[in-house]
Amino acid sequence: MEVEKIILGIDPGTNIMGYGVLKVQSRKVEMIAMGVIDLHKYEDHYLKLGHIFERVSGIIEAYLPDELAIEAPFFGKNVQSMLKLGRAQGVAMAAAIQKQVPITEYAPMKIKMAITGIGTASKEQVADMLRRMLKLDAEEMGKYMDASDALGAAYCHYLQMNRPKSDSKIKSWKELARKQGKI
Amino acid sequence: MEVEKIILGIDPGTNIMGYGVLKVQSRKVEMIAMGVIDLHKYEDHYLKLGHIFERVSGIIEAYLPDELAIEAPFFGKNVQSMLKLGRAQGVAMAAAIQKQVPITEYAPMKIKMAITGIGTASKEQVADMLRRMLKLDAEEMGKYMDASDALGAAYCHYLQMNRPKSDSKIKSWKELARKQGKI
Repeated sequence: MEVEKIILGIDPGTNIMGYGVLKVQSRKVEMIAMGVIDLHKYEDHYLKLGHIFERVSGIIEAYLPDELAIEAPFFGKNVQSMLKLGRAQGVAMAAAIQKQVPITEYAPMKIKMAITGIGTASKEQVADMLRRMLKLDAEEMGKYMDASDALGAAYCHYLQMNRPKSDSKIKSWKELARKQGKI
Repeated sequence: MEVEKIILGIDPGTNIMGYGVLKVQSRKVEMIAMGVIDLHKYEDHYLKLGHIFERVSGIIEAYLPDELAIEAPFFGKNVQSMLKLGRAQGVAMAAAIQKQVPITEYAPMKIKMAITGIGTASKEQVADMLRRMLKLDAEEMGKYMDASDALGAAYCHYLQMNRPKSDSKIKSWKELARKQGKI
């Protein structure tokens, strides 16, 4: 019996939020949706957060994912941008938690490494590799460039799922920091 | 005609979340609920966030607040703790946004200043002033010490509401940073 799995990937930024949906059927994987949510137009911070919550809830209702993979940088330049990013992530996570979709986070470097083999690969290199692996239209991929990181998170999760022993489930922040060699 | 207003105050931490509910009837204000949500027991980060979302949703359903006041430090020691705090805030905010409760944020110093007249007042000084102003039981107040900041946020919002011109609504991060003299 074939088991089908839907993986939703999200890259929750404060100005642009990307998403990508993968359908996995045994070893076959295909992209069924990808897009970007433009948050520039919302000047009010809460409207922005509200819009993220609504859209993520809507995407979950539309595609009924079994898993959510989030691209989540854990270290950034300054505390204020990290607080803003944390809020955007928190709101997106709340939408998934409410619908009981398990969440797995992947650091950007881990996603790049899993897809291209190079932890410092550019956005374009990641998009190009995804395009080839998922046999996507170049035009389609170019149109939603900001969604490629989200699709990358979903694809990274797919690769992790097929590993005999996954090391992707982060149980605690300390564990994560240890894995990233920060402590 | 008397207009009644319910203000919910929340202090969303990552280990302890405090809340306080005020009922305002013309110039009379009284505490109708306060408490703490202990998050220490949840080792899993998502269980923690899920619990915050559920509890805040439950408190909103129980007291039907007209307004939510959040104690929100905008500047912290390190990026990792700010990301964690941002997520806790984001999840609490998502619960309010979903129930269409307007959110107002207050920096800790603003709350302390509004209540005690001293921006650098201690937690105990804030709690003591609140106890006297709201005619609370000393024992009751002591039991929920961690809820005093949340009650302080609600009380600060009440004081702001009664001002002829409120300066508490923060429209943007830039505006806030400007107000706090950071830019």
